[in-house]
Formats: sequence, C-alpha cells, structure tokens
Amino acid sequence: MPQKTSVTVLGLGLMGSALAAALLDAGYTTTVWNRSAAKAEPLAAKGAVAAATAAEAIEASPLVIVCLSVYANAEEVLADGALAGRTVVQLTNGTPRQARDLADHVTGHGARYLDGGIMAVPQMIGRPEALILYSGDEDAFAAHRDVLAALGSPRHVGADPGLAPLFDLALLDAMYGMFAGFAHAVALVRSEKVAATVFEPMATAWLTAMMRSFPEQARAVDAGEYGTDVSSVATSQVAFPGLIATSEDQGVDPSLLLPMRDLLDRAVASGHGDDGLARLIPLLARPEPTRPAN
Amino acid sequence: MPQKTSVTVLGLGLMGSALAAALLDAGYTTTVWNRSAAKAEPLAAKGAVAAATAAEAIEASPLVIVCLSVYANAEEVLADGALAGRTVVQLTNGTPRQARDLADHVTGHGARYLDGGIMAVPQMIGRPEALILYSGDEDAFAAHRDVLAALGSPRHVGADPGLAPLFDLALLDAMYGMFAGFAHAVALVRSEKVAATVFEPMATAWLTAMMRSFPEQARAVDAGEYGTDVSSVATSQVAFPGLIATSEDQGVDPSLLLPMRDLLDRAVASGHGDDGLARLIPLLARPEPTRPAN
Repeated sequence: MPQKTSVTVLGLGLMGSALAAALLDAGYTTTVWNRSAAKAEPLAAKGAVAAATAAEAIEASPLVIVCLSVYANAEEVLADGALAGRTVVQLTNGTPRQARDLADHVTGHGARYLDGGIMAVPQMIGRPEALILYSGDEDAFAAHRDVLAALGSPRHVGADPGLAPLFDLALLDAMYGMFAGFAHAVALVRSEKVAATVFEPMATAWLTAMMRSFPEQARAVDAGEYGTDVSSVATSQVAFPGLIATSEDQGVDPSLLLPMRDLLDRAVASGHGDDGLARLIPLLARPEPTRPAN
Repeated sequence: MPQKTSVTVLGLGLMGSALAAALLDAGYTTTVWNRSAAKAEPLAAKGAVAAATAAEAIEASPLVIVCLSVYANAEEVLADGALAGRTVVQLTNGTPRQARDLADHVTGHGARYLDGGIMAVPQMIGRPEALILYSGDEDAFAAHRDVLAALGSPRHVGADPGLAPLFDLALLDAMYGMFAGFAHAVALVRSEKVAATVFEPMATAWLTAMMRSFPEQARAVDAGEYGTDVSSVATSQVAFPGLIATSEDQGVDPSLLLPMRDLLDRAVASGHGDDGLARLIPLLARPEPTRPAN
C-alpha cells in the first residue's frame, strides 16, 4: 500500500480540530499547529505531530489546510512558511474578495490555492453528509481529492477562488431565510396553543412541495423570461397585508415579513405584477441593469 | 350505486371555478352561482346547474361551498339562503378571526360550519397534491369527506374554525421566508455570473438537509429546552455581519437579511446566545411571556 500524503492543519478551533481528527482517523500523517499550543494536545494524543511554529508545520507537508478564527490572519500565518510547490487549502469562512486576495498572495509565492466553504458543523466532519465546496486550482483539487474526501464530500464549484465562499454565503442566506419563515410560522400557530410538533410535519411537507418551484424559478431568471400561469407577483403582493395583519392580531412580530412585502410592492410598482416570483431575483441586484419594464 | 350528494359552489373566480369543475369531473350534481352570471357559463356547459340567485343555489344542496373574492362578503351572500340543516364550507382566504365570526353566524342559523385553507393554486385542484386544510365541525367533515376529497387531499386540523386559516397563513409565511432566502441566494451567485440553474440543485439539496433540523426545533420550542451542541444563536449572530457585508460588496440588496440579524441580536442581548435557533421562535411572540433568561 503506498504511503498516504502527509497533511498540515493550521488553526485548531472546533472546526480545525475536527478536520485534523478526521485526517488522523483516515490514516494520514497529520501535522498540526495553533497559536495557543494547548489546543494541539488532544490531537497529539491521537497521533498528530504538533509543530512548534507555523513555518515548521507548513514545511512538514505538501498539503496545508488553513482553518483560523479570522480569515485575515491567514496571510500572516502563511508568510512564515516556505510555500513554493505546496497546495494551500483555505477553509476559514471568508468573503469572495478575501479568497481572491489570498489566492493572489499564495500563488505569488509559487503555491497552488484552493478556497473552501464547509457546509457542515464540526460534528459532521469526516462523514459524507458534510458537503465541502472548493474553488480555485482544478489540478490541485484533482490531486488532493482523496485527502479532501476524508473531511466530507468535496465538490469543486469553479476555478475562480471566490466561488466557494460565495456559494457558502449564498447557501447560508437561503438557510436563514427558510429558518426565519419557519420561526415565524411556528410562532403563529403557537399563538393559538397549537404544539410546534403538530405543525412541523405539515410545514416540512409544504416547504418540500414548494421547493419544487426552484428549478423553474432558476430557468426563468437565467432566461429572463418571467411569464407565469401559476402564481404571480401581484397575487403574492395582495396576500401580504393579510399575512401581516393576522400576525399582528395574533401578537406575533411581523418584522420578518416586511422586506418581502416591500420587495413585492417594488416589483408591482415597476410593472412586474404579472410576472412569476423569479422576477424578484434581479430586483435585488443594485444598480439594476437598465431594461424596459415588461 | 347510490346517488352522489349534490353540492353548491358560491363564487366562480379562478379558484371557485376550479372547485366546481372538479366536483363535476367527480360526478357530483353541482349548482353554481356568481354575482356576475357570465362566469357560470363555462361550468353550465360542463353540466352545472346555474342558479339565478345565491338563495336558490344554497337551497339546491345540503353542502354549500363558498369561495368569494372577499371573505367579508360571505355573510351577506349566505344571509339570503335558508341555511338550517346544511353544511357551509368557507374556502375564501381569511383570517382566524373572520373564520370564527362567520362560524358563529352560520351555526346561529342552524347550519354546520367548516373553514378551509387551500394550499394549492387553481391548476392543482382535483389532484391529490392539492392539500386542503379544514377546521370546524368534525362530524360535518366526516360526513362530507368524500366530496371534499374530490377537490384535493382534505385534512382536518381541529375543531376551532380559526385553525385552518391560521395554518394556511403560517404555511404561506414559511413559504415566503424560504422564497426570500432563495431569491437572495440566487441574486448573490448571479452577481458573479453564475447561472441560477447551476446553483439551484445545490441550494435545493442544502435546504432539504437543513430542513431536517425542524423536528428538533419543534421539540425544543414545545419543551422550552433550547440547549444545543450543534449551532447556537451566537454562532449565527457572528455570521450575519459577513453575510450582509458580502451582499453589499456584490451589489445585492441585503434588506431581506436585516430582520433576522435584528432578531439574532435581540436573542443574544437577552442572554440566549448559547441556545439553539429554536429560541428565536418565542422571541417573536409579543408581549413575551415573562420567564427568567437562561
């Protein structure tokens, strides 16, 4: 059996420690470093090599995984090491702009760069249900795919290093929207002493059914064709005053509903009342591309 | 074969016409009425009896389905007819309060009352995927279940007539939250020229996975036990400034995110940072029940 790659993990917070533990479990020689050295001890007890400095940790492996608490610290931590010829995988949460800046820095030092977005909590790391998005150098991704698969299910989303953090943030936005809607709905039924556990299966079934509109919404926005014979912007706009009034009647704060009301109002005022709900998507971009109202 | 019940439908907008058509398709003798009589003509051509007045339509059937454009008109339309001994099923969109008021009126005239929430667009009526919630008189629901099943999948959610409209509105709130999140997420990826159709399958898979937290959130809020070892209010609060800044960086209006940020801020300020996200649900109720911060 060929010897497995050795891997370095810089940063041993909850997530970094979970990443290092998953690599150890998968049999990789794993070197770890953290600014406060105590965090390396539990991993050293499991067989990790605890490096005394970031530079030493970087030099120990061809693949360097970065998972710091603050994205901006990565450049400083990496500055100490000899990067040339290595692959740096940045898994700290950051923005697309930060990812592109760091990619420039790393590739400028002769290393290959991948940025990643971990769509999982630390408890899920090492299991296939932990989706991890990567963007950046496609050859580096192909070369290290097996190692990355020890962390979760890896998915390369594009050569632009900014894409993984962009998708990560977009998925979080979508999740918080869904969670906000669920929280408001449960608060509403609880206002009549209905148990959340009675309502939840209905809500889950309903949202699952409504999610089936997403492919059509995506096609509509890609094509810029917003015609609908099912559910128009105007139909939704008409529903909102009742939703808000009922929320207030029931003593439930309607705040979570208000930006969607405003967006629907704006869509109707711009002449898009007969369009499908996908028409809301380009209205969120500012400045909006100039285009005649349809 | 026993003769099927005859059914009356009052109100022939898009939804009322779809209901009447589904009853005709299922072989029920169907009497229809609409304030402007022309809307009855296509249904009469399919075999419906077009009544000249609402009173005549009401008297034609033991089961009277109401689907007007405005809820408040129901009382006036029903006032003309002899209600005693009949069952009135109100399927106009309304609020819990309106449903209870109309139930009092109808039962005061010796009729049984069901209120309903149609979780479907007119095109879905008559198919099992059209979920229709009912609340009110349970015996009336049991007696007419077969007829109601011709319209979609009927589900009785409680004896209080306000519950079906409450669940209806709650499900719409949840849906609009999910749609708002999806719209914002798609706008974000489109800001980097990524096609919505590329992103959509990932978003659908992710939201489906995240929805698996709903049963636990429901249990938490019913039990008032908000401890979590997965994802806390504080973790989400910390993420929001980055979500909003990235949205702005990408030229995408962050408004849809702001009430959730404010709610998370409020939850942390109230001492609930270590709790799970279900802790947001009771915070939406006002006035909040007095309870010591945990």
